[in-house]
Amino acid sequence: MSTLIPCIIAGGAGTRLWPVSREAMPKPFMRLPDGESLLQKTFRRATGLRDVGQLLTVTNREVFFRTLDDYRQLNKGGVELDFILEPFGRNTAPAIAAAALHVAQRYGEDAQLLVLPADHLIKDIEAFAKAVDNARQLADEGWLVTFGIVPTKAETGFGYIEKGPALSSEAYEVARFVEKPDAATAQQYLDGGLHLWNGGMFCMRVDSVLREFKAYAPDVLAAVSHCLEHSQVFQGKQEIHLELDSTTFALAPDISIDYALMERSKKVAVVPCNLGWSDIGSWEAVRELSPADANGNQCNGENVLHDVHNCYIDSPKRLVGGVGLNDLIIIDTPDALLIADAKRSQDVKYIAQTLKRQGHDAYRLHRTVTRPWGTYTVLEEGRRFKIKRIVVKPQGTLSLQMHHHRSEHWIVVSGMARVTNGDDEFLLDTNESTFIKPGKTHRLVNPGVVDLVMIEVQSGEYLGEDDIVRFTDIYGRVPVDASKN
Amino acid sequence: MSTLIPCIIAGGAGTRLWPVSREAMPKPFMRLPDGESLLQKTFRRATGLRDVGQLLTVTNREVFFRTLDDYRQLNKGGVELDFILEPFGRNTAPAIAAAALHVAQRYGEDAQLLVLPADHLIKDIEAFAKAVDNARQLADEGWLVTFGIVPTKAETGFGYIEKGPALSSEAYEVARFVEKPDAATAQQYLDGGLHLWNGGMFCMRVDSVLREFKAYAPDVLAAVSHCLEHSQVFQGKQEIHLELDSTTFALAPDISIDYALMERSKKVAVVPCNLGWSDIGSWEAVRELSPADANGNQCNGENVLHDVHNCYIDSPKRLVGGVGLNDLIIIDTPDALLIADAKRSQDVKYIAQTLKRQGHDAYRLHRTVTRPWGTYTVLEEGRRFKIKRIVVKPQGTLSLQMHHHRSEHWIVVSGMARVTNGDDEFLLDTNESTFIKPGKTHRLVNPGVVDLVMIEVQSGEYLGEDDIVRFTDIYGRVPVDASKN
Repeated sequence: MSTLIPCIIAGGAGTRLWPVSREAMPKPFMRLPDGESLLQKTFRRATGLRDVGQLLTVTNREVFFRTLDDYRQLNKGGVELDFILEPFGRNTAPAIAAAALHVAQRYGEDAQLLVLPADHLIKDIEAFAKAVDNARQLADEGWLVTFGIVPTKAETGFGYIEKGPALSSEAYEVARFVEKPDAATAQQYLDGGLHLWNGGMFCMRVDSVLREFKAYAPDVLAAVSHCLEHSQVFQGKQEIHLELDSTTFALAPDISIDYALMERSKKVAVVPCNLGWSDIGSWEAVRELSPADANGNQCNGENVLHDVHNCYIDSPKRLVGGVGLNDLIIIDTPDALLIADAKRSQDVKYIAQTLKRQGHDAYRLHRTVTRPWGTYTVLEEGRRFKIKRIVVKPQGTLSLQMHHHRSEHWIVVSGMARVTNGDDEFLLDTNESTFIKPGKTHRLVNPGVVDLVMIEVQSGEYLGEDDIVRFTDIYGRVPVDASKN
Repeated sequence: MSTLIPCIIAGGAGTRLWPVSREAMPKPFMRLPDGESLLQKTFRRATGLRDVGQLLTVTNREVFFRTLDDYRQLNKGGVELDFILEPFGRNTAPAIAAAALHVAQRYGEDAQLLVLPADHLIKDIEAFAKAVDNARQLADEGWLVTFGIVPTKAETGFGYIEKGPALSSEAYEVARFVEKPDAATAQQYLDGGLHLWNGGMFCMRVDSVLREFKAYAPDVLAAVSHCLEHSQVFQGKQEIHLELDSTTFALAPDISIDYALMERSKKVAVVPCNLGWSDIGSWEAVRELSPADANGNQCNGENVLHDVHNCYIDSPKRLVGGVGLNDLIIIDTPDALLIADAKRSQDVKYIAQTLKRQGHDAYRLHRTVTRPWGTYTVLEEGRRFKIKRIVVKPQGTLSLQMHHHRSEHWIVVSGMARVTNGDDEFLLDTNESTFIKPGKTHRLVNPGVVDLVMIEVQSGEYLGEDDIVRFTDIYGRVPVDASKN
């Protein structure tokens, strides 16, 4: 059989999982109770399949380094990593067209593409591997193969796939795709046994998918081809990435693969499967991952509860006192708190949407911000000062930079730093500190093999992130991205 | 008429107002929506009375400096401040006995003592002044005069005073004191018109109260007299304070003035009054102080609410998202969060009690801790580091001290510091920093006229507050109180 290239699509804002999921730290990065992110679980699922030696990921360029970090923790087998970086989301049809064209060029037109969204959970990995085997048989015959999750309840929040004639004991032609049904229709679907949930996973040969794009969505294919001609490939130490050109990518139609191809093509099959699948679509879905105590509560973090029942309380860093509560979702993060009626957990999206409309930081960012070199967390700001905890990964290097209006005091609390301060370069050990005056060019590097943890106290009249002049940057952020450290 | 000495009794843990009210920052210091604390309102009420030139306060010695701070903000008229500082709470009978003995000695036995608890609110100041005038007439005739709040509802949470024969158109003999009633009895009291709420305020001549102590609670009087003989008076710049000796004060019976005297004495009168009184006894009582919006919500701080009604949300520093909530109390503080059914706001005390039993810091302290010289706030702690924001009041002076295990990095973000570091003494200006090595004696002083705001980053293997050797301290904290800065 031809080469299998799993393709992880890491999109999805996950607004219903605010305040943990945010624009700059979207749902695939959300950690489950076992400490692994959805993205990592998807990586493990994809690379655990037979004969997988390479992995393609389509994701936003803003989360590239974070994605690499998540993968590196698991990539002990040395799977080859290949990325397509989008400047912004453009729905699944352009993403999959880009993946298909890229794979055709790199691995040949007979390669099989296995499209895996990174924002859901599959518990039964064996059943998943078996379903993929079945799908690959059909894909080699030219079918676009979808995976149909056997429904376990009358769910109104998902699209459905209706089975047509059987192609084998394990697969069917697709009769049609159907939109999210009302409750009565969903119940009929569940009882009837003909309908399956559409989980957004696909298996198809690259030549098949390109053939169907030509037939049913030639505009998408043309726009994406044009974009690829203007895009650039970068070869990193452990991975390659293709950075999509933003001007031409903007011309691609914003359309899903379902609308663009699946609902139109005559060559779509479905493999029904029981995968222990969850879309992790709301806090209610998340809470189902943890066992409840005798009062029906699922808690993470310190709390004192008096007559509290059926509540999900996630507060890793603060004490929660509860009195006389029932069926609430309480999610505590350093800068924002969510309290929701558990039955209304779908409506959390309205909070996120309102914050987005207001241009509120709490829609986009967490207090801890990820950078290519590590992370920083604003611990406190006030008039004339801002305090950050900065964690620099081994070999991480901040850009050589200068500020006009602020002085920076650096205190190393663990690890070792190499500091450039004007013309001086010196090592700063744990418990040592230094001081960067306004106007001095400076750079911070972690030359060691363990994390460098540093406290930075900025003081001055103006402390905006835009008071920065960046000279050189090993992550290529000069001058495009000059507003960030 | 004889001299009036208002006596503010600032006790009361206020466990039902956790997490804002804590052992080290009890209810009288709680700020109301107008920014004034209950203690400040009591100060204003007491010193606003006719002919008041001095004020006595009985409070815990731990909150002495904080009390002074609260008073100084208001004490423009130059009222003479006199304090009795308790080493620990011993209920109201010993406190009032100490006040009476102290006033007798300082102002004469014919002085009138007006006892005012600092943990409730009185809105109608004019009615209060009038009630005090009425009470003073009776006090001069030898009565122990109580103030009876005319009930506005069938309250089961308060004790009641039953009116006896009239003494004037404005006052009655007390027939009896009655315990907190059940709901039916409370309704009878409300309908009957004979019963008044006992608000814990009293007006009485010192010779009368000492006479009644001798008759009905001689053990309390003897113990407190004995304690006073072993106690010391300190004359400050703007106030005097009497520090009760802890060994002998511990021998005083732990009993309320109601049990010790009022329920036994034959010379107790009551002045009924409508004061716009609230005991601020729960978050429900606090919320009544703010107007509700169209959805019945009272909010302080940033929030995004979707279908939220009749909620009280106090979150001055964090964003709160709410979905589908009704009738909840949500109180957010930097280290602890309370969420309670509003109808159950009395039960918040169980949370505080559990924390007390656990010896949890969140029962005793806020993240911001008050010290004689100012405040400190722990912004962050982790392995090998702790970051504090330190605010030193003008002329405030930390003790001369030394740590064995930690280095301290000090960065001035506003104001000016005078630093002693080993044998050096120097000024540290805004934006400057210095570094104290382990083993170096050091001291920090604010020599200026505006607050000094400093960030302290401690680093080292051991960062406990007990790694301190204190040499000299202008607030007399050597060596009794050696565990605090």
